[in-house]
Amino acid sequence: MALIVQKYGGTSVGSPERIRNVAQRVAKYKAQGHQVVVVVSAMSGETNRLIALAKEIQKHPDPRELDVVISTGEQVTIGLLAMALKDAGLQAKSYTGAQVKILTDSAFTKARIVSIDEQNIRTDLANGYVVVVAGFQGMDEDGNITTLGRGGSDTTGVAIAAALRADECQIYTDVDGVYTTDPRMVPEARRLKSITFEEMLEMASLGSKVLQIRSVEFAGKYKVKLRVLSSFEEEGEGTLITFEEGNKMEQAIISGIAFNRDEAKITVRGVPDKPGIAYQILGPVSEAHIDVDMIIQNVGVDGSTDFSFTVHRNEFTKAMDILKTKVQPHIGARDVIGDNKTAKVSVVGVGMRSHVGIASKMFRTLAEEGINIQMISTSEIKISVVIDEKYLELAVRVLHKAFNLDQEDA
Amino acid sequence: MALIVQKYGGTSVGSPERIRNVAQRVAKYKAQGHQVVVVVSAMSGETNRLIALAKEIQKHPDPRELDVVISTGEQVTIGLLAMALKDAGLQAKSYTGAQVKILTDSAFTKARIVSIDEQNIRTDLANGYVVVVAGFQGMDEDGNITTLGRGGSDTTGVAIAAALRADECQIYTDVDGVYTTDPRMVPEARRLKSITFEEMLEMASLGSKVLQIRSVEFAGKYKVKLRVLSSFEEEGEGTLITFEEGNKMEQAIISGIAFNRDEAKITVRGVPDKPGIAYQILGPVSEAHIDVDMIIQNVGVDGSTDFSFTVHRNEFTKAMDILKTKVQPHIGARDVIGDNKTAKVSVVGVGMRSHVGIASKMFRTLAEEGINIQMISTSEIKISVVIDEKYLELAVRVLHKAFNLDQEDA
Repeated sequence: MALIVQKYGGTSVGSPERIRNVAQRVAKYKAQGHQVVVVVSAMSGETNRLIALAKEIQKHPDPRELDVVISTGEQVTIGLLAMALKDAGLQAKSYTGAQVKILTDSAFTKARIVSIDEQNIRTDLANGYVVVVAGFQGMDEDGNITTLGRGGSDTTGVAIAAALRADECQIYTDVDGVYTTDPRMVPEARRLKSITFEEMLEMASLGSKVLQIRSVEFAGKYKVKLRVLSSFEEEGEGTLITFEEGNKMEQAIISGIAFNRDEAKITVRGVPDKPGIAYQILGPVSEAHIDVDMIIQNVGVDGSTDFSFTVHRNEFTKAMDILKTKVQPHIGARDVIGDNKTAKVSVVGVGMRSHVGIASKMFRTLAEEGINIQMISTSEIKISVVIDEKYLELAVRVLHKAFNLDQEDA
Repeated sequence: MALIVQKYGGTSVGSPERIRNVAQRVAKYKAQGHQVVVVVSAMSGETNRLIALAKEIQKHPDPRELDVVISTGEQVTIGLLAMALKDAGLQAKSYTGAQVKILTDSAFTKARIVSIDEQNIRTDLANGYVVVVAGFQGMDEDGNITTLGRGGSDTTGVAIAAALRADECQIYTDVDGVYTTDPRMVPEARRLKSITFEEMLEMASLGSKVLQIRSVEFAGKYKVKLRVLSSFEEEGEGTLITFEEGNKMEQAIISGIAFNRDEAKITVRGVPDKPGIAYQILGPVSEAHIDVDMIIQNVGVDGSTDFSFTVHRNEFTKAMDILKTKVQPHIGARDVIGDNKTAKVSVVGVGMRSHVGIASKMFRTLAEEGINIQMISTSEIKISVVIDEKYLELAVRVLHKAFNLDQEDA
């Protein structure tokens, strides 16, 4: 008998019929003797509908009240799923985030979980109940309703699994696992049986949007065994996300090719090469709540250097504006140039730690196709390059092939 | 400076535009220096949509989970209204029933309020906030979400007003007050400037659905000054519901003509006239959760009597079935007959306590139109008759005229 936390996203609970399918799947696990906690998102489209309604009232909805409104999406789903479970002959009980209680900080619309009181859930499980928990939401110390931000239901699932020390946290989604790259771009892309947390973190942050990155960090921190599965397939083992590298390293050097199409590149040229300059450049950008992705600064020449970074394409104009009006005159840089027609491609794999030549193989492969590399950044387990957007598909395809990712025993 | 509780029904908050109108009205009261608590229903149609969704999952939705689902309707409205108030430049804060907290018993879908903790609301009001409270909902001792049943938002409004000792509880609805009868049936129907609680109770229970009966009882019990107003008219004083009969008795004998179209009549004939028989007949009906309205038992002849009562038309078949299979053979009654094509008409007024001849005037008026009276039941302040459904409109019109209800100083 195992204790399993299952998390179902909006598409998986998008209609009464699909909610009944989820109940059937839960019933199967119960029949095998497992204890099951189910964490659910709002029915697909519901959160967007509620946000649109709020924006009809207030152009920039008050965050506290927006959370009051949008948290109802998950609340409807937990009630409906508990009904479906009862209809399937199981004992079931729903919990809102506040009822659990999932205590968060007070950062409305993007709260962080502080603690989870799992006592009532444990009692219900011991009494044979399936426990249904609303994802994405919690309450702060003053009893205000909070939400965890988009994708927060994954985080709820992992956090509940951590609090209960569950044997496994299963994330059901509309894909059946983590692939070596996006199958829509490379038909030869292959589902990975397992992937390490670190690789998953790199894959997620680079645009393989199977899991929300925060939930993966959470799972890593609390050593929660995480599995990504399809809610639309009866069989299939999905992809297990492990925190043991073990024999994994022997099997494959590279796990996948991640990419991000929405990258924009900005370079501040002729920056005085002295302490504190990075903060003076990125401070104002960060204060404007613009997320910065890659950051590159090369060795300076004659006391001056170039400083480059990438932002989401939607933030490009805003970021350029800040740099030209606030940063450049202030630090005395020569000029600011940018390009929002770029994309990022990364090869990811824990195997590269113990294998040399990955970088050179990647660069050679791209060079053979005449693809110019504009920026390079590396970590322990990934190498990322920024290239012209128009070469993105080509780059992903040739790298996928070059690293033999289409072959099971690569 | 007064403390005012305003309750807005589903139609009054049925769209973003209407929610903004409510905010404007609240702003006007705030500008006059009043403290305002607003209690709101779900946007019109929302509760029905949620119930329909639940029924797609489970034919008879689990009551606990149904409350989890339908309570989201009001939760959306409080968030939206708080946003609209902030957009209008006011300080505002929303509360769910659980957040207040409105403690109820655990009778899901028809819970009763046990107590209200008004401390946080008081603090907010003192700090200049408009407080927005979700009607219709509360929580039980175990933290389960409960709802108060249809129309429960009125009850929430009155209960909050009672807890805060508010100066007035204003019920905004789509009619501008209480009328002498339904204006759709009798164009000469006139808005009453005031009505006593007792009359209102009789009017409400008899089908003048301006206010939920439970909220009127509540207001009477806690001496809350209640006013019914239109949310669609800028001016107008609505109808004040008072608990002082005072000069009212001098003005009018009869306040209005109430009616109920959905009445079905059942008679158990040849019932042994002995103690306990009423309970033996109505016990099984009540156990089946069928509400009984009028009950009539005449003096017995030769140790046998006839026992009649009315139920809602929707419950007619079920009630007949119970009587024929469970009651009749058990108590040895001769037979059970029924008619679901009946209606009830009542004249209501505290004035009839001190005036004779009301009943005879009513019966004569009906007789002159050839309308046969099938059942009669009376209380201190009302006389009700059951008649053939097809004469309903005629009966209401002629009674309205006979008691001079179309004249302001009647």
